Amino acid sequence: MDEVRIGIIGLGNVGWGTVTILAENADQIAQKLGFRLRLAAACSLDVQERTIPASLGSVFKTTNWREVASHPDVQIVVELVGGTTVAAEIFEEAIRNGKSMVTANKELMAASGPEIWDRAIRAGANVAMEASVCGGIPIHAVLREGISGDRVAAFLGILNGTCNYILTEMERRGVELSVALAEAQQKGFAEANPTYDIDGFDARSKLVLLAALAFGEKIVPSDVYMEGIRRVTPVDFRYARVLKHAVRLIGAARRTADGVILAVRPALIPASSILAGVRGSYNAVWVKGKFGEDTFYYGRGAGSLPTGVAVVSDIMRVAREIRSGSPERVSPFAHERLGENKPLPIAKKVSSYYFRFRVDDRPGIIAKLAGILAAKNISLDAVLQEPGENPHDLPFVMTVEPTSEQSVQEALGEMASLDFMTEAPFAMPIEAGL
Amino acid sequence: MDEVRIGIIGLGNVGWGTVTILAENADQIAQKLGFRLRLAAACSLDVQERTIPASLGSVFKTTNWREVASHPDVQIVVELVGGTTVAAEIFEEAIRNGKSMVTANKELMAASGPEIWDRAIRAGANVAMEASVCGGIPIHAVLREGISGDRVAAFLGILNGTCNYILTEMERRGVELSVALAEAQQKGFAEANPTYDIDGFDARSKLVLLAALAFGEKIVPSDVYMEGIRRVTPVDFRYARVLKHAVRLIGAARRTADGVILAVRPALIPASSILAGVRGSYNAVWVKGKFGEDTFYYGRGAGSLPTGVAVVSDIMRVAREIRSGSPERVSPFAHERLGENKPLPIAKKVSSYYFRFRVDDRPGIIAKLAGILAAKNISLDAVLQEPGENPHDLPFVMTVEPTSEQSVQEALGEMASLDFMTEAPFAMPIEAGL
Repeated sequence: MDEVRIGIIGLGNVGWGTVTILAENADQIAQKLGFRLRLAAACSLDVQERTIPASLGSVFKTTNWREVASHPDVQIVVELVGGTTVAAEIFEEAIRNGKSMVTANKELMAASGPEIWDRAIRAGANVAMEASVCGGIPIHAVLREGISGDRVAAFLGILNGTCNYILTEMERRGVELSVALAEAQQKGFAEANPTYDIDGFDARSKLVLLAALAFGEKIVPSDVYMEGIRRVTPVDFRYARVLKHAVRLIGAARRTADGVILAVRPALIPASSILAGVRGSYNAVWVKGKFGEDTFYYGRGAGSLPTGVAVVSDIMRVAREIRSGSPERVSPFAHERLGENKPLPIAKKVSSYYFRFRVDDRPGIIAKLAGILAAKNISLDAVLQEPGENPHDLPFVMTVEPTSEQSVQEALGEMASLDFMTEAPFAMPIEAGL
Repeated sequence: MDEVRIGIIGLGNVGWGTVTILAENADQIAQKLGFRLRLAAACSLDVQERTIPASLGSVFKTTNWREVASHPDVQIVVELVGGTTVAAEIFEEAIRNGKSMVTANKELMAASGPEIWDRAIRAGANVAMEASVCGGIPIHAVLREGISGDRVAAFLGILNGTCNYILTEMERRGVELSVALAEAQQKGFAEANPTYDIDGFDARSKLVLLAALAFGEKIVPSDVYMEGIRRVTPVDFRYARVLKHAVRLIGAARRTADGVILAVRPALIPASSILAGVRGSYNAVWVKGKFGEDTFYYGRGAGSLPTGVAVVSDIMRVAREIRSGSPERVSPFAHERLGENKPLPIAKKVSSYYFRFRVDDRPGIIAKLAGILAAKNISLDAVLQEPGENPHDLPFVMTVEPTSEQSVQEALGEMASLDFMTEAPFAMPIEAGL
């Protein structure tokens, strides 16, 4: 039969985008592939009320995902239900039945990807997950194939569109985080419970998947230092501007001589960098290669159709492999295992840092803080202070030359107990090389 | 044998970068592939004086490319001699011998790609050409695989690093093109005879290859309107800045209802766009997808190691296909053939435009020019004039609302014969949607 047959489980935002593209782009897809993709089965709780586009022909509809995962006609199962419970069962059953998988499920892949991959390989199946990281940006294709001859030395990404929307609104208009967050919630860019986005969990899952692919090492979420954007305030954007920098939530992974350092946290990046030009709910990844030097990738981080493009492109690739009977697979999880890329604690990070304090003003504050830095062998670079309105809650900033995160954390700890601090001091790394 | 064997013809800049990566990255490549790449043969005129890294083992060296193209051990021939004469013979002989090809040769592919592809398919061989467009940017992998489920509506690229270096130096320092060009030549970014770069030929070859892949239509160089950067002057950057735009050499392809419009020419792009942030000798491509919306790709456009990464990544992909015996191929040239993408003449382009004049100042000039525009139904948007030093050679600018290139060219023709013009008027499109 001149077609490859797929079953979709989950007809939410991304699922419906996938169905739309399969219908509207069917002829072009067939031209590119030389055969047709056929939607053989679709599952969602409301599937009976959904009108599948007529051009897709007759589709087996069910509310029971097991009927898709075990359907004899289905060669590729597209899992778009999300989460780590039912989705894990879907993977288990479908792979046991020899189906190849396409997914947008970053949590499941970040938590259990290597085990799922191993099971799939043993079953002669494939697992494709372009849609799980940075929606419309084909970063998986880039790392897996486009620059596969390179060695990734580091990457820095804007991996969460909600945080980037909030931070760039704060930057543009000088508003508080709470204001920008409320607007993001109104516009549907942020959930009612925003913790998954603004505390860094979403970006961390993406970082885990990108790092596994870039470094070929088994990386788990607990390997990643995570700090959300709640402590970023309008004053930080004003000081960052004076320093010719911007503030963004950066997911970064860097290879050092001893291993890889992974972090999701707010950071200063040069205002003139292309990465700082990423505004609103977009995602972007800056990759530093040992041989190919810097490359950069940008696009929609989410959305029904952009993420649908990633799903459909993965379906096309897996379908091509099924048709060609190709046994070759490149694991997105562990292809290197040379022992050079073990995750290191954040304490090993070395960089310049930005410290922001809020103090009850009095003589000797700078001397006191500078003394703590000096005792840790941290070299002060600049001290910045805006004219303050309230001397009892005065914000000011110090920047320091490259030092270890260990020293920074120790200094922050000592500084926090000083009696003139009106809140705990806050530090961000200043990322260079962009 | 647990390896795939390659032969390289041409050990210049890119050839040596390829050899370097094959040697220094051999273990990682083998880990990713599950088998080794072996350099079986190398050809260049000075090959006997070249020291192939010892880690690559014994390599058959020859000054006769036919001994590589017909070598029984060689499965993949890497053609890196460039040009369209010897390179064409290498392709013919190697494909006749059933070898798959990897190349960085944009001229040959732009001129003869579809014929070469057809011959390769009939011979059961593959042709990979990531390195032929935008060096270190994996734009082929992106279009062929990463966003293959999308339909490209348009793309705009900074495709020539030499021109971008010259234009961004003119922008940054206010110097004349001749000064920036001389510096580029000194630094090795530009050839002694710069016409291939600054008159647009290099960018045109890249545009042809990208358009063929993006739209799946047979595109040839003569389908592309081409205009180099020689007429851009420092005054254009000053006026562009007032208009909050930047001047870049843009290779653009846009799908319209009637076909595709293709052009390489200087253009105004919004100063706040990410594309305008591309400075120096980098390349970049902005892609607009029907479903996936905007994505953006950036990196080194040339250079020994960045282009070598593209070559090695292609070798890895082709080697994987050889090992898997996969018969599936996606033509980079014509997968769509739906008749929607035939190339249209530039006269059909509709856009806003920037007109720059140099005149011998006298009363009534604006009225005269505005009258010509009005007679063509072109709506004037703005008139800008800096305080001029020399009233006998006064530069000033008009911008107009969206109109056809046909009308613009007719207006330019009439304006050129006006007696107050001290040189032919110059127009650039103002690109939007970035």
